Amino acid sequence: MTPAKSLSRSKPSAVGATTIATSLLTVPTSGRGFVDFTAEVTRFLADAGAKEGAVTLFIRHTSASLTVQENADPTVLDDLMTALDRLAPEDAGWRHDSEGPDDMPAHVKTMLTSTSLHIPVLKGELALGMWQAIYLIEHRARPHRREIVLQFIGAA
Amino acid sequence: MTPAKSLSRSKPSAVGATTIATSLLTVPTSGRGFVDFTAEVTRFLADAGAKEGAVTLFIRHTSASLTVQENADPTVLDDLMTALDRLAPEDAGWRHDSEGPDDMPAHVKTMLTSTSLHIPVLKGELALGMWQAIYLIEHRARPHRREIVLQFIGAA
Amino acid sequence: MTPAKSLSRSKPSAVGATTIATSLLTVPTSGRGFVDFTAEVTRFLADAGAKEGAVTLFIRHTSASLTVQENADPTVLDDLMTALDRLAPEDAGWRHDSEGPDDMPAHVKTMLTSTSLHIPVLKGELALGMWQAIYLIEHRARPHRREIVLQFIGAA
Repeated sequence: MTPAKSLSRSKPSAVGATTIATSLLTVPTSGRGFVDFTAEVTRFLADAGAKEGAVTLFIRHTSASLTVQENADPTVLDDLMTALDRLAPEDAGWRHDSEGPDDMPAHVKTMLTSTSLHIPVLKGELALGMWQAIYLIEHRARPHRREIVLQFIGAA
Repeated sequence: MTPAKSLSRSKPSAVGATTIATSLLTVPTSGRGFVDFTAEVTRFLADAGAKEGAVTLFIRHTSASLTVQENADPTVLDDLMTALDRLAPEDAGWRHDSEGPDDMPAHVKTMLTSTSLHIPVLKGELALGMWQAIYLIEHRARPHRREIVLQFIGAA
Repeated sequence: MTPAKSLSRSKPSAVGATTIATSLLTVPTSGRGFVDFTAEVTRFLADAGAKEGAVTLFIRHTSASLTVQENADPTVLDDLMTALDRLAPEDAGWRHDSEGPDDMPAHVKTMLTSTSLHIPVLKGELALGMWQAIYLIEHRARPHRREIVLQFIGAA
């Protein structure tokens, strides 16, 4: 472990927290893969008049999940999918196989990634790093309609 | 990556955020396995008079963790445990072995799943999908008493 | 699955939620490894006058991540790193290799751990368990400067 010697931190800026705005986002997927929905979260924040606070993203499924990942080189997403396939292969002798060979791996991949994310919002903007985007990961082979609850809490 | 073309999103509904309610939940486990404590979170929200907002779940341990997973077919939970055992087997030459062979795998499994979850609450109800339940995962072989902080923030 | 029979839960305590305080923490890393920055989060909460609520931690990178893990025996951290190396080895035939052999494994390890954490704050203190500390995990081989947004929401 590295001692955290030379950290720096900006002074806290404080605002009143007065609003909770909620919206349900429906994302159609075309089967296994990543769907970048960052722009939709940005639009939600604009619609809600969000200024300072945080946005929660919650996916209402157990065979699709959320992640914040690199938005620059698309081969990163290919490799992330490969990594998940290796960690939860279809032919691994799963007991739960009644919904197809891709179903149980989808649950495992969901468990290993995220069902909920929480991202700060500063001056009305997502506090994402330069290379970060917000992705839904569809783990099932076939297209699905996925629901994500978007919720802003903070000052509007 | 799939372009997010045909997303749909409901208009944001907004309420004032005025309350934080906190409770400590103690969950006795009977050793390795999943414990569904969704009903207890629901009761907490009722007791707190929660209406619109979000609930945070935080487990105060590093060898037990949280996940939102399928509540229908119990073999899903068996397979999830198998998946975790394969990703962090006991006989993998861990350096940290002073607390028994199941301890270091328990830390790895905790790292790969969740210590904190954040779930929106709408009209007093958890915004879970139809097949979702909230689980504590006990990763140690023996029974333990586990503490989870429940915290609602929003309008009551 | 174990039925959750003998759970116990304290009565909810409620306060008004009125403040959001935000700060940007910069953490220099010395290459692969864990950096415990719990003390810095504690100082942020003191500076913000935080009393009751929760703190969000969000890392603005896709090749470094966050986790809450054991703070007692340093070999736990060694073993966690070993586990991540086994789950995402460098020589696994990644397509994305233009930024060095450690880059794609870093993205996979980030996906498998956490980009955002949410920890309750009670009476001005992080509600961590006795053995928990908050770590940044640097997944790249070389030193980096990493940015983490700290945000308290609650009563100050």
